[in-house]
Amino acid sequence: MLSPLKFNGAELQLLDQRLLPTREEWITCRNLEIVARSIENMTIRGAPAIGCAAAFALALDALAQDKHTTWQSYRDSFLNGCDRLAKTRPTAVNLFFAIDLMKKECGAFAPQASLGEISNKLSGLAVAFYEKDLATCRAIGKRGADLVPSKKKLRLVTHCNAGALATAGYGTALGVIRYLHEKGRLEHVYVDETRPVLQGARLTAFELMHDGIPCSLVIDSCTAYLMQQGRIDMAVVGADRIASNGDTANKIGTYSLAVNAHHHNVPFYVAAPLTTFDSKAKSGRDIVIEERDPDEIVKIRDTRIAPEGVKTYNPSFDVTPAALITGWIAETGVLKPPF
Amino acid sequence: MLSPLKFNGAELQLLDQRLLPTREEWITCRNLEIVARSIENMTIRGAPAIGCAAAFALALDALAQDKHTTWQSYRDSFLNGCDRLAKTRPTAVNLFFAIDLMKKECGAFAPQASLGEISNKLSGLAVAFYEKDLATCRAIGKRGADLVPSKKKLRLVTHCNAGALATAGYGTALGVIRYLHEKGRLEHVYVDETRPVLQGARLTAFELMHDGIPCSLVIDSCTAYLMQQGRIDMAVVGADRIASNGDTANKIGTYSLAVNAHHHNVPFYVAAPLTTFDSKAKSGRDIVIEERDPDEIVKIRDTRIAPEGVKTYNPSFDVTPAALITGWIAETGVLKPPF
Repeated sequence: MLSPLKFNGAELQLLDQRLLPTREEWITCRNLEIVARSIENMTIRGAPAIGCAAAFALALDALAQDKHTTWQSYRDSFLNGCDRLAKTRPTAVNLFFAIDLMKKECGAFAPQASLGEISNKLSGLAVAFYEKDLATCRAIGKRGADLVPSKKKLRLVTHCNAGALATAGYGTALGVIRYLHEKGRLEHVYVDETRPVLQGARLTAFELMHDGIPCSLVIDSCTAYLMQQGRIDMAVVGADRIASNGDTANKIGTYSLAVNAHHHNVPFYVAAPLTTFDSKAKSGRDIVIEERDPDEIVKIRDTRIAPEGVKTYNPSFDVTPAALITGWIAETGVLKPPF
Repeated sequence: MLSPLKFNGAELQLLDQRLLPTREEWITCRNLEIVARSIENMTIRGAPAIGCAAAFALALDALAQDKHTTWQSYRDSFLNGCDRLAKTRPTAVNLFFAIDLMKKECGAFAPQASLGEISNKLSGLAVAFYEKDLATCRAIGKRGADLVPSKKKLRLVTHCNAGALATAGYGTALGVIRYLHEKGRLEHVYVDETRPVLQGARLTAFELMHDGIPCSLVIDSCTAYLMQQGRIDMAVVGADRIASNGDTANKIGTYSLAVNAHHHNVPFYVAAPLTTFDSKAKSGRDIVIEERDPDEIVKIRDTRIAPEGVKTYNPSFDVTPAALITGWIAETGVLKPPF
């Protein structure tokens, strides 16, 4: 099964997602700085996968120290490493979960603890963090699949990449799809290409084909037409942040898909781990939407597709109001707001 | 003012719209086959412009014949030319109006009519067809602008390119926009980029910037989010074919836009000449939707953006049911079905 990162106890391998789908190259990381840069430059992306990479980065940092180091003399370096990682992608909430977990566990070390103990402990924590994410994704997959009638093979649509590549593996929205496929209950997946950054075309299509899951790539605005023809039974997407009332921020285009699903009476589900539910945000109004570089719209790699100097509006996310969402699939089951 | 085709009585020049917006190149056509291929490969596109190109192609065909030809000996070649053109883009109804007009007028020729008479007649018909289209667009622009309250400056959205580049000049949907701009009644145009062929990004943005009309380029799935924010007063699009009951075939993505406009109570207008109204099609079910090359989705120019071997579904058009359309703006006024 596809995973965007592999740790062998001495080094971390990251699948370079910037080169997908045309090239599959792995980057070997032997220290924290290389991992930090790989998060910054989006070699690895997706909040859960970033969290795992950060945990492994702190393990690598301990492994790279002098053997005679003690916790007392290593502590400052460890905290610097935490700070360095925290600056890489400050909106990825799982990054802070990983760092906070490592910090908390390290707080219990005796000052004279040896490097062996430190690096063993950090490696173990990172592996556990990774495995917990994997288990969470599998649980989301099962919970989502349990939701839907088992007699009919389903035709699904998804947007962006909430897949193995965005997590430790297996995925959230794609976890549901993967689980249905494992149980022989999936007929087909329509993959929104997901302009402007094309995560659907580049990552989701790659991932589904890699795992032999039947899929077709469509442009984002084609999904309405598929629904009109009765060719979609269910929509399932991931989430970047979910407010207490259920309003859900996700990749731009999710809202349009939800409006169309509503119009066609197609169930529309959000699949996300409990860590994505933000109790501080009361509603979608409390979620800040970042606007990104116009180049994402006017260029594809080095190919210019719009006139020089054209104005653009390029929000990275949109907010789908809770009223358009059929259910929120988390690892503990299907939730309904208020959360 | 921008026009996509120029005829000088001996040859037809076509603006190669595949190269826009980065290069402005004209292709010289001296025979029917080059025009037919230019329609097929989308050098020229947009139903009214295709109609004009087909009319000029038949004029060129007569011009290219041996001088001693008579109507009797030329007739088969003429009919073959009509058949060749009819196969280029079968969804473009104006193509058939142009062909039928030429056929009908030629029916009145005496068998011994000379080539001089034939080619003069066909050239004259083609020029008149072109000029009529230009006048029609201006009338549509005025009718559309008359529809909307004059006190407020409007923020519009459009999809694809129903502009000067899709017609003899001035445009249909962009005719309404251009007319509003001329009268100082336009605040802003949001331009859907219109995947997969990017007519919005490449053509509409180019055309609006060329004529100094304020616009912003957005990805297709962003328009719903703009509507949610109350930033769009009206949607106006062109049409490829309109059935008697008002169901309207237009570029893929139009239906999604209409569903979103309906959900947000944004008036949704179709602007099209009477030639686009197809009395033979009772409803959208009678309109055949062509499916196009997967390469349109998986490649942008020479850049591959999806995995090798990925399946795609790439319909060129969709059908918006009449119930989602506020009104049909034709050169004679705003129409309501049944037509």
